[in-house]
Amino acid sequence: MQNFTFWNPTKIIFGTDTIPQIGQETRRFGNKALLVYGKSSIKKSGIYDMVLASFQEAGIEVIEHAGVKSNPVLSHVNAGIALVKQKQIGVIVAVGGGSVIDESKAIAVGAQTDHDVWDYYLGVREVEAALPVLAVLTIAATGSEMNLVSVVTNEETQQKFNLRSPFIFPKVSILDPTVTFSVPRTYSAYGAVDAISHTIEGYFNGSDPWTPIQDRYVEGLILSIMESAERILENAEDYQGRATMMWAATLALNGLPVAGIGAMRSPNHLIAHSLGAMYDIAHGAALSIVIPGWMTYASRKAPRKFAQFAQRIFNIQEESPEKQAEKGIAALKAWFYKIGAPVSLAEGNIPEEDIERIAENTQSLARKWNVTDEYTQKTVAHILTLCR
Amino acid sequence: MQNFTFWNPTKIIFGTDTIPQIGQETRRFGNKALLVYGKSSIKKSGIYDMVLASFQEAGIEVIEHAGVKSNPVLSHVNAGIALVKQKQIGVIVAVGGGSVIDESKAIAVGAQTDHDVWDYYLGVREVEAALPVLAVLTIAATGSEMNLVSVVTNEETQQKFNLRSPFIFPKVSILDPTVTFSVPRTYSAYGAVDAISHTIEGYFNGSDPWTPIQDRYVEGLILSIMESAERILENAEDYQGRATMMWAATLALNGLPVAGIGAMRSPNHLIAHSLGAMYDIAHGAALSIVIPGWMTYASRKAPRKFAQFAQRIFNIQEESPEKQAEKGIAALKAWFYKIGAPVSLAEGNIPEEDIERIAENTQSLARKWNVTDEYTQKTVAHILTLCR
Repeated sequence: MQNFTFWNPTKIIFGTDTIPQIGQETRRFGNKALLVYGKSSIKKSGIYDMVLASFQEAGIEVIEHAGVKSNPVLSHVNAGIALVKQKQIGVIVAVGGGSVIDESKAIAVGAQTDHDVWDYYLGVREVEAALPVLAVLTIAATGSEMNLVSVVTNEETQQKFNLRSPFIFPKVSILDPTVTFSVPRTYSAYGAVDAISHTIEGYFNGSDPWTPIQDRYVEGLILSIMESAERILENAEDYQGRATMMWAATLALNGLPVAGIGAMRSPNHLIAHSLGAMYDIAHGAALSIVIPGWMTYASRKAPRKFAQFAQRIFNIQEESPEKQAEKGIAALKAWFYKIGAPVSLAEGNIPEEDIERIAENTQSLARKWNVTDEYTQKTVAHILTLCR
Repeated sequence: MQNFTFWNPTKIIFGTDTIPQIGQETRRFGNKALLVYGKSSIKKSGIYDMVLASFQEAGIEVIEHAGVKSNPVLSHVNAGIALVKQKQIGVIVAVGGGSVIDESKAIAVGAQTDHDVWDYYLGVREVEAALPVLAVLTIAATGSEMNLVSVVTNEETQQKFNLRSPFIFPKVSILDPTVTFSVPRTYSAYGAVDAISHTIEGYFNGSDPWTPIQDRYVEGLILSIMESAERILENAEDYQGRATMMWAATLALNGLPVAGIGAMRSPNHLIAHSLGAMYDIAHGAALSIVIPGWMTYASRKAPRKFAQFAQRIFNIQEESPEKQAEKGIAALKAWFYKIGAPVSLAEGNIPEEDIERIAENTQSLARKWNVTDEYTQKTVAHILTLCR
């Protein structure tokens, strides 16, 4: 195990009929809230009314900031920041999925500074303050509800960059699995892929040779995500499946799976972020295309961990670790396919001719993440050919 | 999954050479600290000097409160409270194991009230404030370094009771695995038993039928604890073994393994606490005596989960769940024996004639925990006969 610091102060309120608590929880941080959400889906589902009623009961004034995109964009973040400053709002409440929470975190940072908020995503400035953010989660996927990360896309520069700061942990996140009953099949599948992707980045890319706790924690999450995804795809209103998926997705990226694994890299996200910035593709779909190709690339260099993955996730027994790894990757790809996630560039409507352009696009993030030693444009292009 | 609230704000600083951070971390909460510890072992090991040097550098005045017993007692807690009040101390730093941290939490509560601190352990009062507690952990076992629990023994009434309050989460806990190199074989083994015991209470005594995340999380911790215990018993200075044991013991009782499992009971601790209150026996030793007996009792009523345990921990395959459960319990008992933990009342020097008295002693805690429907004096006596 490597040295680490672990701190995660987000309070999780989990379960049925928990949304009416948002008012009283928000009231602890202020009496004028920016309500951030995406499209009208939260109105159809009744969540919007529930949240407003709870705010009213708690005596909270609400200013709305709707229209967050599924890959949140900088221009909309800046509009939110301007609104918060103009109306002197003290607390931000995200009602939605990872995109809405990520944008809320960005607004929370931007509202407390006179600098361009994009500077913090570029890494040229350090966050020193942020408004409190609370969340009502409506889709299980990104883990943003319990972590210090925010991902935003700068449409002008086609950069999808992330910001990490302890100031942006949500204070409180409310997770009611029943609100995810209405998440469509495709997005339920993408959420499962996204959650799995978060666990495997650290699992395969850590720098410590012996991490039995973290390995088993991740393996347990993956198995639970797979089991619950299958329950959900069979019956969208399976409470146990939805609840397990929601909690697993949160735990997949709350810092615990990677505590102690040492320096790590996130090559699948490196490539998937470029796909997200360049094409209008869901994050989970980008990942299900990239992961099997990247795993093939990486397992050829060092098959041991991929062999362990094959054995513990798919119960694949083989004498040769290479063979075992290969079968495990094929099994994961087959499972992605089975749940309806795309497993090739073609299935994601991404032209093969674009491979060089995509590889080129990854390089600015690769520089920010200091991974250009391995993930050169050439290597990324090679990995993308394995995703065809 | 059942509804739950999860909140754990303790900051963990984990790894080699981390103890010198205690001064600056403490300074965030005050400049006059009560240093709580047990015997002179922290002086021999050099930890004491390291802590004092760090305090000095951070400009913190230190008042010492030494002599914490391995089952911390109320009279010593009260002496600490008096000292804090007299000297107007603002922050408490525990340097030691679970007992030292538990006593520090008790002092932290008592220092902020004029009521008898034992009232909070009896459950007749609710904690409304506590001084900040920080910890430097010197033994992997109880999990107190990252939770809201404190266990104290009232010597006069022979009651070993626990207090739960969000006010007593340590603010910061420093975990340097190298300080546990000097923990003797027996206590290393007891620590492993204690950590395992914390995970299995929820695992076997939750109230939800489908908890795949929590099950696998616990199974992963148990396997990691067993692997690391074996490494440690082979080589006391095996860093990976010590680090894994230390982190696993912390994770075993930080609230996460039980989040979502619903109402639960802790029958093994119910009985072990009485052994601890009545005899001068280490907590881990009391548990290794009780657990196999309790498991036998409980698996006869409902073998399913015990069969899963046998399969996933010991890879035991059997057609009949009863047989599988039985073999799993025998395997755990054999493993306790192998690492040198007592597995019978006789091995713990507890006279068989005392069974009725022990069973009687459990009843006041059983009433406090509302488990007298099942854990009557008669049933506890029966379980104790299975521990012979």
